[in-house]
Amino acid sequence: MDTSIEKWDFFELELTGPKGGNPFVDVRFGAAFRQGHRCVEVDGFYDGDGAYRVRFMPDTEGEWTCETCSNRAELAGRKASFRCVSPGPGNHGPVLVSNRFHFAHADGTPHKSVGTTCYAWVHQGDALEEQTLATLRQAPFNKLRFCVFPKDYDYNRNDPERYPFVKAPPAEGERYGWDFTRFDPAFWRHFERRVGQLRDLGIEADIIVFHPYDRWGFARMPSEADDRYIRYLIARLAAFRNVWWSMANEYDFMQGKSAADWDRYFALFQRLDPYGRLRSIHNGHRFYDHARGWVTHASVQHSDLGKVPEWRAQYGKPVVVDECCYEGNNRHCWGNITGEELTRRCWRGCVGGGYVGHGETYVNPEEILWWSKGGRLVGSSPARIAFLRKVLEEGPAEGLEPCASRVVPAACEGCGCVGDGYFLAYFGIHQPASVQVHLPPGKRYRIEAIDTWNMTVQPVREAAEGSLEIELPGRPYIAVRIVARRP
Amino acid sequence: MDTSIEKWDFFELELTGPKGGNPFVDVRFGAAFRQGHRCVEVDGFYDGDGAYRVRFMPDTEGEWTCETCSNRAELAGRKASFRCVSPGPGNHGPVLVSNRFHFAHADGTPHKSVGTTCYAWVHQGDALEEQTLATLRQAPFNKLRFCVFPKDYDYNRNDPERYPFVKAPPAEGERYGWDFTRFDPAFWRHFERRVGQLRDLGIEADIIVFHPYDRWGFARMPSEADDRYIRYLIARLAAFRNVWWSMANEYDFMQGKSAADWDRYFALFQRLDPYGRLRSIHNGHRFYDHARGWVTHASVQHSDLGKVPEWRAQYGKPVVVDECCYEGNNRHCWGNITGEELTRRCWRGCVGGGYVGHGETYVNPEEILWWSKGGRLVGSSPARIAFLRKVLEEGPAEGLEPCASRVVPAACEGCGCVGDGYFLAYFGIHQPASVQVHLPPGKRYRIEAIDTWNMTVQPVREAAEGSLEIELPGRPYIAVRIVARRP
Repeated sequence: MDTSIEKWDFFELELTGPKGGNPFVDVRFGAAFRQGHRCVEVDGFYDGDGAYRVRFMPDTEGEWTCETCSNRAELAGRKASFRCVSPGPGNHGPVLVSNRFHFAHADGTPHKSVGTTCYAWVHQGDALEEQTLATLRQAPFNKLRFCVFPKDYDYNRNDPERYPFVKAPPAEGERYGWDFTRFDPAFWRHFERRVGQLRDLGIEADIIVFHPYDRWGFARMPSEADDRYIRYLIARLAAFRNVWWSMANEYDFMQGKSAADWDRYFALFQRLDPYGRLRSIHNGHRFYDHARGWVTHASVQHSDLGKVPEWRAQYGKPVVVDECCYEGNNRHCWGNITGEELTRRCWRGCVGGGYVGHGETYVNPEEILWWSKGGRLVGSSPARIAFLRKVLEEGPAEGLEPCASRVVPAACEGCGCVGDGYFLAYFGIHQPASVQVHLPPGKRYRIEAIDTWNMTVQPVREAAEGSLEIELPGRPYIAVRIVARRP
Repeated sequence: MDTSIEKWDFFELELTGPKGGNPFVDVRFGAAFRQGHRCVEVDGFYDGDGAYRVRFMPDTEGEWTCETCSNRAELAGRKASFRCVSPGPGNHGPVLVSNRFHFAHADGTPHKSVGTTCYAWVHQGDALEEQTLATLRQAPFNKLRFCVFPKDYDYNRNDPERYPFVKAPPAEGERYGWDFTRFDPAFWRHFERRVGQLRDLGIEADIIVFHPYDRWGFARMPSEADDRYIRYLIARLAAFRNVWWSMANEYDFMQGKSAADWDRYFALFQRLDPYGRLRSIHNGHRFYDHARGWVTHASVQHSDLGKVPEWRAQYGKPVVVDECCYEGNNRHCWGNITGEELTRRCWRGCVGGGYVGHGETYVNPEEILWWSKGGRLVGSSPARIAFLRKVLEEGPAEGLEPCASRVVPAACEGCGCVGDGYFLAYFGIHQPASVQVHLPPGKRYRIEAIDTWNMTVQPVREAAEGSLEIELPGRPYIAVRIVARRP
């Protein structure tokens, strides 16, 4: 018992076993982790070269033991133990749904989700990937959406260095050939290293399992290959506390997959992921029914952020608008809105009680656009999104509920509240010189005008009560924050 | 036959008749105007002090005769004649629906409708009203929406100098009393003088017959008073060639009126207006069914201008978005959008094949807001709307049809076209650095980038053909104009 593992970090047991045949399909390997009467069964995975690993994230402190099981004698009945100790600084545990429409880490720290997207960043080679990590270190984002599979799309025609599967001779008429029964451990070691680096930056890894932008054949694998891939993904990565599962980017654009396929994938994650990591699925044109039990939160692509309260009511879950068009100037309508507009959409979604993701698509001669490859950020919205995150984190832990017309009837682009104690009204492209405010009785409130673009906070009233008219700057992109004073 | 009247101007016959009793209800008076086999019957009206008038707008040149009819002998069988001569400069005749979704004057001059709104400008007294006219003289607008009845609303609490009806002792519990059987000619002479002044400025008078913002009782008159008022309005004003009839501002907010009432008003105008002036009705939340036969064009209040093509398809008529929020900074969401946003909405509606109206609501200590009282314009959108009008008027007479994805697939906020000869794509808040263009085969085109905010036109290609990628400024508020070159 000389191994210590932080709570919410993971213990890894490595064993040596058979190399012959195809260990990925021939060998079953896993372990049962026990503490007191509790037992958590976890699948292991083959990491190539005779190495078998099983990973486990403990969520309670104290002694844990484990015993392996396998259809191969040399991998079965092996025992180990470790001590789970207090989490270190910055380790708040996995993100869970909290207060029905919001998120918090397992230690109770609120997670005000402020995401971004770099679909194919892990496929760009070390130099660019390290630059992406350096950018993220300075950026405001605490969640990153990215794909396991490489991306084939406008501005994305480069081949990656590594693939998740081992190559095979291409079938007649195909450009690429894969042995879908053999994973390439080099790819996966690289992939999980990036996931761990994000974790160390405090960034959730919103892993996209399938996506339609494919020339290699990964979007149209046989069902059994899909399922084997999902099992391997879970066995390798579920133990990382920062993992979220996104079944797809634009699931409805994947013509080879049926509704039953998506349901089967969700069910697999639900059954095999021992930690119940967050699960969702991102749409193109048509929303998945996020009300279904295996969806933990709605992942939405839509440009009208005024609908967030409607989606919350419809699904009864957190709403994360992961795509609402990106700041940039590329040739696609989804990739060329202004920084002002993206910032506006972020604010609008947040005061509606949801969360909104960033993306950036400025073109450059190298065709390194943040939205897919990562690299550097040059847009004007990240600084404003950092400011928005600060405002959200200064607010109540519970998270905002939409209350559009209660206290600030003319909150033209929405108002979020927490009980009678906190209101955040947003005006967007509306620029009132004054608005009426009807404060709940029995309390006095501090009122501030927030310039969400210039990132300033200006006091309006120190101890207001009742109904009153307040003056505002008469510029666009203003929010009003109203906070009850302590009695 | 010494009277000459311009075509589309009006002839007025004045007779003296009975003053006793109540001439407004006791005396029926009208005239039949004849040219060759044609006969147009027109109602006259009592103008007070024994004066009876009948007005007639001739639409063909040559000799016209008329003979009055009345239930009073001294007003019956009186004859007159006049010569209708060519219209003078600036007189293009009334505006009619043209090419199904568009407008043109009777002489064929296209009317690219660029309206504004000053609901209660005729109730503000001469000094302010003259200032409004002086402003309009410099402004880009060719249509003005305004009410017959005074307005009671936020920023509008002043009483007018004149009322359409003669005062009467208020009923029990009422603040105002009116004799709805007696019109006040002083009001009407003033009102029609303003209509004539607009005509002389080349501005259509979009007269709002009823509206809900009332403290005087005009929004809840008995049905017979409503009908008598409509007959009087038609008899006095239909002969002005610049008159359009709007049954209401926000008809659905008038709780005292039923669907049958609105239908009856439309039918009255349809039956009694000898010239068939344009007829519509403006909504609050719920659209009237503009497909009905007596509606000549849809008058819409809505803030999503992307829906214009949908409304065109639904109603099969011109779509005029008379209200899409106003540029300003007042305390209401409908009255505080930026000049950028209003300009954007105007462009978006126009490339969708519709027309969009302006309004301005900047607050000032005098509470003289253009949207209701007129006065001066201080906003940033009128100059841009003037530029938009110039672009529209430089375009083909036929008017734009929406063709969103045909030639400029990434025209993010719409594209209007005329056949294969003209395309106007608009990008709004999208700021592509380049876009793909797929030109119809067999023609060469001039391509220009229009900065709709800075009001500049920049050549992009002189003689393009086929599919190509064009560079754009990468700023918001850009349009691309593509015009076929003459062979």
